[in-house]
Amino acid sequence: MNTYKIAIDVMGSDNGPELLVKGALAALSEHEDLEVLLFGDADTIDRAIGEYDRSRIEVVSTTEVIDNYDNPMEAIYKKTDSSLVRALMTLRERDDVVGVINASSTGALLAGSLRYVPAKQLRRPALASILPAENGGFTCLVDTGANIDCSAQHLVDFAHMGSDFMKQYYGIENPKIGLLSNGTEPTKGNKLVKETHALLKKESDLNFIGNIEGNRALSGDCDVLVAEGFAGNQVFKNSEGIARRLITDIVKYAKKTGSSEIMQLVGYLMKIYDFNSLGGAIVLGVDKPVIKVRGSANADTIKNTTSMLMNMIKHNDLFNGKDVR
Amino acid sequence: MNTYKIAIDVMGSDNGPELLVKGALAALSEHEDLEVLLFGDADTIDRAIGEYDRSRIEVVSTTEVIDNYDNPMEAIYKKTDSSLVRALMTLRERDDVVGVINASSTGALLAGSLRYVPAKQLRRPALASILPAENGGFTCLVDTGANIDCSAQHLVDFAHMGSDFMKQYYGIENPKIGLLSNGTEPTKGNKLVKETHALLKKESDLNFIGNIEGNRALSGDCDVLVAEGFAGNQVFKNSEGIARRLITDIVKYAKKTGSSEIMQLVGYLMKIYDFNSLGGAIVLGVDKPVIKVRGSANADTIKNTTSMLMNMIKHNDLFNGKDVR
Repeated sequence: MNTYKIAIDVMGSDNGPELLVKGALAALSEHEDLEVLLFGDADTIDRAIGEYDRSRIEVVSTTEVIDNYDNPMEAIYKKTDSSLVRALMTLRERDDVVGVINASSTGALLAGSLRYVPAKQLRRPALASILPAENGGFTCLVDTGANIDCSAQHLVDFAHMGSDFMKQYYGIENPKIGLLSNGTEPTKGNKLVKETHALLKKESDLNFIGNIEGNRALSGDCDVLVAEGFAGNQVFKNSEGIARRLITDIVKYAKKTGSSEIMQLVGYLMKIYDFNSLGGAIVLGVDKPVIKVRGSANADTIKNTTSMLMNMIKHNDLFNGKDVR
Repeated sequence: MNTYKIAIDVMGSDNGPELLVKGALAALSEHEDLEVLLFGDADTIDRAIGEYDRSRIEVVSTTEVIDNYDNPMEAIYKKTDSSLVRALMTLRERDDVVGVINASSTGALLAGSLRYVPAKQLRRPALASILPAENGGFTCLVDTGANIDCSAQHLVDFAHMGSDFMKQYYGIENPKIGLLSNGTEPTKGNKLVKETHALLKKESDLNFIGNIEGNRALSGDCDVLVAEGFAGNQVFKNSEGIARRLITDIVKYAKKTGSSEIMQLVGYLMKIYDFNSLGGAIVLGVDKPVIKVRGSANADTIKNTTSMLMNMIKHNDLFNGKDVR
């Protein structure tokens, strides 16, 4: 049996390292072919592991933490014994480590990924989210807010990065690329979108299908939805906000009517629309997967993100002709 | 009893004039203080009215129609006997006509409003949508897609227009103004948003409360949410798309389980989240209300939009010290 080693930076989340360690243990219980490297304060990690069997756990003791108050660029150069930098360096140095999960500063994670993780081609890294599409599949929304005020060429890069990603990690043969706009016609969009549309049409190795409007963002019409970070952030956060709001409305309604059938429905919807446990954002533009979960991550977030990463990596292995049994 | 005369352009929708006339009749049945002026092909309108009592209906025969294939600027100057231009001219000329409802081309409606409807101050007209806020109130989102690639000064104008509108037509004393961004801190946003943020802070006659993120767009944190047209369009369309999708999921689930309680829930949600019957988009920047409903408008759309317009106008009268019994 192949095993997969995933590096988890357990520091830097809002809720403390213990919850993230608990999430890692839950992931170990779920995947017998998983091993984890836990980066952070060794004592805290040790206590959180407790009596759990340590045969598939490696604790990497680090002394520094990068948080949201740090200047990202400075921090990733200076705090070389931080859990984040050490996890990223390990991803670079060890072939047997297949991915990183992290809950700290987005800026530092992007800067650190660019600095420490190898990339075949030097491109501005982008942040993607894998969202549940209406047809049951997934849509890779890129960029979700890491890159604000981009150029059209950046957006074309995002399209390539998203396309490569969906091929490798989701096994989609010829990913359909959509461009977020305010109308489906090529003449619709702001200046940037119109310019990007023209460039994307010329990219013969991309399966560009045209503009996608906000109401079809998660329809599944495309596998990769390309957006400038500001607009992508709106779609990402708004989708989550509206889904959460409807679910809250339904819970209130269920409480008022006392309907158990409706409470079951809530459970069903939460599974589809819990953006938190969908596994956070992925750094595109580097050769190994680096995943950012929110600061508010809990044990479930880590468990679900680890499962997502395991699936991704197995797809990637399949893509590269490896045996993944 | 005061009566209110509303001009309805029944041409130019996707589903034909008959449905819009039916909607007007339904509105008349609902509001005894309403009178309607129906603009369009007189024969068609006459047939659609049928046996309905005509004492509160005025049919205005027009011979031209402006559709989506027309160049908006050209059409509003040349097609002077179109239902749209005639309705807007009537709004200007007749004090007793209080508003216009229209289902045709957005471009022509904006150009026509600017050309034919008086405005205290010459400003680029914007398109606003009144969306259901989480706290039970309403949020005026401006702009929802009419103005793409705006300047910061345009956004400041939108804030004023939205603030004036919510005061006059929704009776809100000191409307809270939010600015759509990708983070709540003043340092967050693209170049345009940061520049706008700085300008809005200086507007002493606006109750500017700061940046609002996409997941709080419809929270009710602000009464007016200012956005550049491209981003505003994403929030507007995405909100609708996600709400519609959850409701569709729930309907499927209800059919599978055969739960009548869940079908009742669907009815409840549809009332809150049916963006179509919330009454379409409002042209801001002119002194009398002009409302655009979608091309796909049906009788319900017209009935509900008329009710919204009646409420707005009564608030405006109250605001101006009029007796609205």
